[in-house]
Amino acid sequence: MKHFITGAEFSKKEIQQIINLAIDFKNGKNTFDLKGKILTAIFVNPSLRTRLSFESGMKKLGGFINILGGADSWDFEYDDGAVMDKDKQEHIKEAARVISRYSDLIALRNSQLMTKKNKHDKQVTWDNLIKDTPINQLAKYATVPVINMESNMFHPCQAMADMMTIFEKFGSFQKKKYVLTWAPHPKALPLATPHSQMLLPAIMGMDVTVACPEGFELDSSVIELAKINGGKVTIENDQQKAFQNANVIVAKSWASLKFFGNFDQESEYRKKFTNWLIDEQKMSLTNKGIFMHCLPVRRNVVVSDEVIDGQNSVIIDEAENRMWVQMAIITKLLQQI
Amino acid sequence: MKHFITGAEFSKKEIQQIINLAIDFKNGKNTFDLKGKILTAIFVNPSLRTRLSFESGMKKLGGFINILGGADSWDFEYDDGAVMDKDKQEHIKEAARVISRYSDLIALRNSQLMTKKNKHDKQVTWDNLIKDTPINQLAKYATVPVINMESNMFHPCQAMADMMTIFEKFGSFQKKKYVLTWAPHPKALPLATPHSQMLLPAIMGMDVTVACPEGFELDSSVIELAKINGGKVTIENDQQKAFQNANVIVAKSWASLKFFGNFDQESEYRKKFTNWLIDEQKMSLTNKGIFMHCLPVRRNVVVSDEVIDGQNSVIIDEAENRMWVQMAIITKLLQQI
Amino acid sequence: MKHFITGAEFSKKEIQQIINLAIDFKNGKNTFDLKGKILTAIFVNPSLRTRLSFESGMKKLGGFINILGGADSWDFEYDDGAVMDKDKQEHIKEAARVISRYSDLIALRNSQLMTKKNKHDKQVTWDNLIKDTPINQLAKYATVPVINMESNMFHPCQAMADMMTIFEKFGSFQKKKYVLTWAPHPKALPLATPHSQMLLPAIMGMDVTVACPEGFELDSSVIELAKINGGKVTIENDQQKAFQNANVIVAKSWASLKFFGNFDQESEYRKKFTNWLIDEQKMSLTNKGIFMHCLPVRRNVVVSDEVIDGQNSVIIDEAENRMWVQMAIITKLLQQI
Repeated sequence: MKHFITGAEFSKKEIQQIINLAIDFKNGKNTFDLKGKILTAIFVNPSLRTRLSFESGMKKLGGFINILGGADSWDFEYDDGAVMDKDKQEHIKEAARVISRYSDLIALRNSQLMTKKNKHDKQVTWDNLIKDTPINQLAKYATVPVINMESNMFHPCQAMADMMTIFEKFGSFQKKKYVLTWAPHPKALPLATPHSQMLLPAIMGMDVTVACPEGFELDSSVIELAKINGGKVTIENDQQKAFQNANVIVAKSWASLKFFGNFDQESEYRKKFTNWLIDEQKMSLTNKGIFMHCLPVRRNVVVSDEVIDGQNSVIIDEAENRMWVQMAIITKLLQQI
Repeated sequence: MKHFITGAEFSKKEIQQIINLAIDFKNGKNTFDLKGKILTAIFVNPSLRTRLSFESGMKKLGGFINILGGADSWDFEYDDGAVMDKDKQEHIKEAARVISRYSDLIALRNSQLMTKKNKHDKQVTWDNLIKDTPINQLAKYATVPVINMESNMFHPCQAMADMMTIFEKFGSFQKKKYVLTWAPHPKALPLATPHSQMLLPAIMGMDVTVACPEGFELDSSVIELAKINGGKVTIENDQQKAFQNANVIVAKSWASLKFFGNFDQESEYRKKFTNWLIDEQKMSLTNKGIFMHCLPVRRNVVVSDEVIDGQNSVIIDEAENRMWVQMAIITKLLQQI
Repeated sequence: MKHFITGAEFSKKEIQQIINLAIDFKNGKNTFDLKGKILTAIFVNPSLRTRLSFESGMKKLGGFINILGGADSWDFEYDDGAVMDKDKQEHIKEAARVISRYSDLIALRNSQLMTKKNKHDKQVTWDNLIKDTPINQLAKYATVPVINMESNMFHPCQAMADMMTIFEKFGSFQKKKYVLTWAPHPKALPLATPHSQMLLPAIMGMDVTVACPEGFELDSSVIELAKINGGKVTIENDQQKAFQNANVIVAKSWASLKFFGNFDQESEYRKKFTNWLIDEQKMSLTNKGIFMHCLPVRRNVVVSDEVIDGQNSVIIDEAENRMWVQMAIITKLLQQI
């Protein structure tokens, strides 16, 4: 049974089918019906857009959604064979199988924060985070398809919405220059979203450039995963150069893995690049490129008001498309059963 | 596009139409269908009645509701042009437009507490609270109708339920004496509800008296708004005198604006008026008046058990009518689109 | 009007009818329709299984559910005649009647924790907890049927799911040996679940043995309630002896009432019985007995991996059956109206 965790579970052809179906949904052609289907969505981390887009999407297509927030569940035991005499009161093996009996699909958002320097952070290593244990153990034991609503490593639903939005604007991915640019931010943000925003366009055959200051390179395993799936990724430390002739600018901030665990140092280093803010001068270097951002966005820190409010900004369409493409992913996952 | 923020967006005639429709809904005549309509309701402040009445109402009429609690969203940036390098991570401009894409209507409860003396309170002034920035900025940027589920200044859904209840009991608003009476309470409560409970009956042409101890006068801008809409409001510091020949007694406690910001002083002053409790002796002065309260109510502090449990108490009908009248307001707001 | 608080509101015959209906629902025979029915479920204590099973169940049968968590409501005043000048801002008399106007049924989980030694615990006595004031006062004032989703004394929905599961496996309750066995646990757990897991099988005519170390006897009033309803309960302090020829083993940990209020002492005493863990050796004494647990379960503390993952473990079916039997209970409660 296929789950949707990295996004690379589906081929280029299948992703195109999902996008086409999402566009059909958006146009009111609900040819496949989610009538009576129940999605249980678990948010260990809070969410505005992800939550509402799944809620409204399920309801629009005749389905149902159960939403569990952090306070409604608890921290599961993920280790097989554990003697559970400490703080964990339920093993994922039971939770996954039980929720599967109450649901047709399960979605999970579980992203460990990288931004706070506290006792917890000291114990977490990048080698450990990269395993994405919660979503992978959930998928191992669930008896229904599992959807990743953002893990430590991937946020494939966001990248799928981006792909749908690009397809709507250009009608094709071929020979389109896609630039994912790092942007300034007061906090060290997770890497899940930029990882997926690099991986998916590469799979779809776009000409992908990641523009970032030295030291902000994304995890090499994701670049490798892009290559395995036939994608090509260029790294560029010169933002102005990267923007030249771009058709699509996707802005996103993320933490520097180079300083992982040393957040004070990371913060100092990050401050050097506040001039990576996206403004009209930089956008003028592109080939009338569209501006994208996953939201929430800090205005006049990540991007100027002029760019985000400009006519090439597609951020609201991009957010709306979360809803439609997620319903198409669900449809695809249910068709295999 | 009309929103529903003060209640005065609708004329006397339109409010009567909404009440008539609400009574139809209550009688099972769902002539207008909310089928498939999605309301997103955001509760920055918690709620029991408001939440359940919107939830059950939407479901009864075929619609859907997405509910966001405080923990599910975050504190938005409301200032246009802000450089967002502090704690606010999303501008209302994006949030309002995105939620509009997932919803047919948006409802917001955002009432800043007046009761705690802490750092936060020191920065808040009445001149600032009176602007109702959250609901007004939401309405500015939303592309669907916005409903006020209680702001700093207004709680029009409550007052509409009161109007419906009065119309059910009397069949008319004309020549009916309506008394909104201040009542004792251990806390300095917000003014939104009494403001609306003064404004709406005035618009509907009732003979409105606000009975309150000196120093508890409601905000002058709301009295002005009542006048602009053809209403007449009498202020009366003698509770016994106010009750004479009343058809309707609406009890409610609220803070004294005179002491705004000086809550210790306010608390001392408020304690002088514990004898404003509504009891059977006072009710006997009325013209067999009905007793109303928005709930929750502190028994034997605001009102005696005998009055609230008496046969002229209509508090449970009043609470039920929240559900029906809110559905009628939604219907009216959707009809304009 | 019947509520569902102890489970003993229904006769043996009626409970069998509910189980039969639950099996019909599970088999897709939704002969009675919950279409349009609204359940309001209030969780003062958090929940995973109870919440999801009610949510999915209501949705599968065409109904609706409103869910209130702890943060969405408040601590009600339960005393009739109270002068409400302290921290309680709403009386259950209003809350129960208002929620009844928005709902066809009300469900409540309100279980006071026994595990923490703090100011609160000092004031609570077992004589007070045993009254189950919240659910009983809710039922007193509600004008629709009330369902107990776990109180201090009873968790009848869990025991009904157990009964359904046993009936599915054996086709009859007659002459079946049912053993509820105490199990080790790091915390002093509530008694509601074991109380119901003793009461319901006794009512259904099973040969019930409660196996527990001396000092862990369940409350005598529940044993009495079992007897009044024609049941028979044997207490056995020798776990190995209790397991002999058992058809059903239900494992559950609970606190020792002997030490109620002295949690440090209780904890020390409880540690002596870690060898009550259920393992394959003990299960081999049974008559090929099935293994049950209400979940969540601490693996290798309460029960070994081998038993819980073994072919006689029915824990996932048991959890699924919560959903179906609860819908059957609701159906039965609504049929009386």
